[in-house]
Amino acid sequence: MQSNQATDVPRGLAGVVVTDTALGDVRGREGFYHYRQYSAVELAKSRAFEDVWHLMCHGALPDAAGRAEFTARTAALRRLPDDVKAVLPAVARSCGASGPLAGLRTALSLHGASAGLEPVYDTDPERRRGDALALCAAVPTLLTALYRLGQGLEPVEPREDLPYAANYLYMLTGSVPEPRRARAIERYLISTVDHGFNASTFTARVIASTGADLAACLTGAVGALSGPLHGGAPSRALDTLDAIGTVDRIEPWIRERVLAGERIMGFGHPVYRTEDPRSRMLREIAQEFGGPLVDFAVQVEARVEAVLAELKPGRELHTNVEFYAGVVMELCGLPRAMFTPTFAAARAVGWSAHILEQAADSKIIRPAARYAGPPPPQPVPAG
Amino acid sequence: MQSNQATDVPRGLAGVVVTDTALGDVRGREGFYHYRQYSAVELAKSRAFEDVWHLMCHGALPDAAGRAEFTARTAALRRLPDDVKAVLPAVARSCGASGPLAGLRTALSLHGASAGLEPVYDTDPERRRGDALALCAAVPTLLTALYRLGQGLEPVEPREDLPYAANYLYMLTGSVPEPRRARAIERYLISTVDHGFNASTFTARVIASTGADLAACLTGAVGALSGPLHGGAPSRALDTLDAIGTVDRIEPWIRERVLAGERIMGFGHPVYRTEDPRSRMLREIAQEFGGPLVDFAVQVEARVEAVLAELKPGRELHTNVEFYAGVVMELCGLPRAMFTPTFAAARAVGWSAHILEQAADSKIIRPAARYAGPPPPQPVPAG
Repeated sequence: MQSNQATDVPRGLAGVVVTDTALGDVRGREGFYHYRQYSAVELAKSRAFEDVWHLMCHGALPDAAGRAEFTARTAALRRLPDDVKAVLPAVARSCGASGPLAGLRTALSLHGASAGLEPVYDTDPERRRGDALALCAAVPTLLTALYRLGQGLEPVEPREDLPYAANYLYMLTGSVPEPRRARAIERYLISTVDHGFNASTFTARVIASTGADLAACLTGAVGALSGPLHGGAPSRALDTLDAIGTVDRIEPWIRERVLAGERIMGFGHPVYRTEDPRSRMLREIAQEFGGPLVDFAVQVEARVEAVLAELKPGRELHTNVEFYAGVVMELCGLPRAMFTPTFAAARAVGWSAHILEQAADSKIIRPAARYAGPPPPQPVPAG
Repeated sequence: MQSNQATDVPRGLAGVVVTDTALGDVRGREGFYHYRQYSAVELAKSRAFEDVWHLMCHGALPDAAGRAEFTARTAALRRLPDDVKAVLPAVARSCGASGPLAGLRTALSLHGASAGLEPVYDTDPERRRGDALALCAAVPTLLTALYRLGQGLEPVEPREDLPYAANYLYMLTGSVPEPRRARAIERYLISTVDHGFNASTFTARVIASTGADLAACLTGAVGALSGPLHGGAPSRALDTLDAIGTVDRIEPWIRERVLAGERIMGFGHPVYRTEDPRSRMLREIAQEFGGPLVDFAVQVEARVEAVLAELKPGRELHTNVEFYAGVVMELCGLPRAMFTPTFAAARAVGWSAHILEQAADSKIIRPAARYAGPPPPQPVPAG
């Protein structure tokens, strides 16, 4: 509002501190990020997804009894109610053209509404947390059901005896995954639970600040994630590898793109000035698998970084999370259409932790715009 | 991100200028707001809803030929595709417990996905505007179909020969409305198309800033509007009138509430320090109808303002848009459950104008949070 005191800030709110958070931080210059004090990469290396989910939503890593209880509780929330299940074939059909995030946005909205969620400010914190767990637990079931329906396959019912990541792959393929694949995806999921105050996390918090229910917040966040400037797409980095094709084409391909002013998918990050710590971890995972795709990706990384250092000196352009995430997901048998949805499943846990934190604040987020058109009032001409 | 330059601003981003806009402004101290230079109240008094919609999305009021063309174009977009229509009974059933905005959020997400919308940044401006018109034109059809299905009634197909507001009432009730009712609702709708940079408008713009498609943006905005701190609820103001019941109970009822520290629904606004100009216009409309409800509302307004002036001196608490909006909608035969959805239908036009404006900017909105927990890294204990 022009008439109130206005504060001018950088475009896109870059660097503008909207809130305090205890959930974590990204230290771009150090190449380090953490969840509630714990290095996210260390958590990914040593913990189960459920442990990190508990950490984000309950505030602490669980002990053995707490883990067993939380794992059982969230596993029981994977199953969809019949009314939601019944609509998924139609959702899959209608959303086919717009992709899996549009399907998730729709199905998650429906699932939350079906559960009769209440506004976050009217809900006691324990119930609110339960709502958050229920929605996050349903995301993999919704995503895999929509994907399978889109392929003309029957959805696979969740199994409560499998951990989160293994159950996700199981629902996607219908087979219990090899342990090393399940573990690789679990590490990827843990590493992408949260990452600063990006646009989808911010969207979730703005909606939460109005007191809207958890489904409203998460649906909005999924929408923001679907934007090409935000969600990234690990599949794009793989598409780059495909487009290059062979080792001898790396140099000419990259030079041509850079000289044409194109962005190279999978390289560069708005925050990290060092190697992206997620990228380093995912490369290690990929190298544990090995094989021609991994060898090629490592060569492409080295050559592209060298060419970028030469053509854009001082820019510190390294692989970002997309690059090796795509390689790891390919190695684990995920179809490319599910790369970004898999990211969304993990990030839903981070979003919901942010929503719970925002809901405890109860101050609406309502900034201002500056009217910059010609001066009013203009008389309304007769119609 | 803590490691970048941080800018500290007021809580909830109050007064923080996120963007320039040519769409309008709210001048709280003057009790005036406008759309692209034109007093919104004057527009409501003298123009058709379609004129204002054209103004917001095309940048100018239409001439006679432009109006005819725009009216025909948007009327043709009211009809839902069969795949969306087929799912609405299930959406109405599943969303019943969470209310009509949860239903709209779901159905609009589905409708947009079904249309195969593309990311706003990848879409040429003309196509993008067409997408915006298509979604806004469908909102009344979706809302009234969901409402009727919830009541066990068949949806009513839209009529292309009726103006926007008359068709809305027609689809809701199945009868062509009396002209003065259609005109009263049309004026209400025009007056609520846009109103500054509120949380739902901001949500729409944050999502648009990622490049996400129009359905993603509007779905998020509907979610934000559903929050009790934002959407308001014209029905609450009517509930207040019901709770008071009779003229002699006005004084004791209001004193009791104020002394208990309760907010009085329908009074006070975060921006206006004068009478809300929407309230004044809606009171005039209500008084054209006349009758006991209107007389009672006018008396309640006068007494409540007097008591508030006495108990909260200097606060300038007047009726806000909710108070007489509820009265007008009741006079026009709208069921209370449809008061806020009706508001959402009008505001969808404002949101989509903001989305189109944001999409022309192409800078992601990505603020920062300050980590305020204990210092990392904490070693990850063995699991």
